[in-house]
Amino acid sequence: MKIEVLKRVLEKNAARADDVRAVLDRNQVVSINLMGSPGCGKTTLLEATFERLQAETRFAVLEGDLATTRDAERIAAADVPVVQVLTEGGCHLDAATVAAALDRVRLDEVDCLFIENVGNLVCPANFELGEHHRVVLLSVAEGDDKPLKYSYMFQRADAVVVGKIDLLPHCRFDPDRVRSDLARINPQASQFMVSAYDGTGMAEWIDWVRHT
Amino acid sequence: MKIEVLKRVLEKNAARADDVRAVLDRNQVVSINLMGSPGCGKTTLLEATFERLQAETRFAVLEGDLATTRDAERIAAADVPVVQVLTEGGCHLDAATVAAALDRVRLDEVDCLFIENVGNLVCPANFELGEHHRVVLLSVAEGDDKPLKYSYMFQRADAVVVGKIDLLPHCRFDPDRVRSDLARINPQASQFMVSAYDGTGMAEWIDWVRHT
Repeated sequence: MKIEVLKRVLEKNAARADDVRAVLDRNQVVSINLMGSPGCGKTTLLEATFERLQAETRFAVLEGDLATTRDAERIAAADVPVVQVLTEGGCHLDAATVAAALDRVRLDEVDCLFIENVGNLVCPANFELGEHHRVVLLSVAEGDDKPLKYSYMFQRADAVVVGKIDLLPHCRFDPDRVRSDLARINPQASQFMVSAYDGTGMAEWIDWVRHT
Repeated sequence: MKIEVLKRVLEKNAARADDVRAVLDRNQVVSINLMGSPGCGKTTLLEATFERLQAETRFAVLEGDLATTRDAERIAAADVPVVQVLTEGGCHLDAATVAAALDRVRLDEVDCLFIENVGNLVCPANFELGEHHRVVLLSVAEGDDKPLKYSYMFQRADAVVVGKIDLLPHCRFDPDRVRSDLARINPQASQFMVSAYDGTGMAEWIDWVRHT
């Protein structure tokens, strides 16, 4: 019974995701679904990305949170149009929620839409949002065992960003282990090592965003 | 429809949780549901706790993960009986899963059972497991805004442990902010600041575990 309901929910979501993608395509907007654990640095990565690219690319953000508008305020302070989507306890964004939020974005003035998902390394993996690219951000503070433990998320990523690498000297994290685990479970994914804090590795990530 | 199903699922889960609690009480086992984000340090906190307390307390662990048996291997290496519970993609443990896993624990040889939940700051908050105490672990690397952003989880905790405080000099994390946010949303919760890595603050946490 539970499984049947979940299957219907996912099918309905996939159909709505196709609608979202059609709207984005019609407006020539590329969209990126940014996922990762709570506190892995998603908003900080966006701030650092906009700082480097907003002179040439018109961004907008859908900001998914369970509660508070704090992240949306940070994005707005970076002078990027943002719509806060509060899930009120919900563990992921879904395509219907994204579709509704898109009504509040001037898509004709946007080149690239970031959808910052709810901080969660599990549930968002199952829900397409009509995105063109799926990016998973993993902070080195979370440990190098995450790609195998949360393989559902990492297997379906188009790019994996290892973030907060300025903390590497203080954490037990082996970048080679992540590289080899990803090579095994998702060899197609682009991989980046960045610190949004001190700028290390940002150039390669920015280049990837530029060419999406 | 979705909400009705969820309500039924939660009601059924609560009934199973009562059964679990009855079994634990009959065996005089105290149980602690340990929750937190992926990579916040749950297994490391358990290792450091057992090291300090296992001479006087008989522990056991139910180890919840989506995939891999790595955490269970770490607990077993600490010489504590452990049952690995793989959710195969599921985002939380539920009471029925815990009930089934308990069949594999010699409860007459256990004083304190830790249930390490799936790394997730959202979904586990909704599912009672028959635990006597709920503990949320927050790593300083996750940022000081988490109690308000993930308030559903933090509001229902009996204890909040701020962990990895050895990283404080390298992170933007204000312990006073967490303290004051928790004082507002959950003034009853015990609060601890620990580093399982260098041992700072462990004595207070150990004392709390000892008196559960």
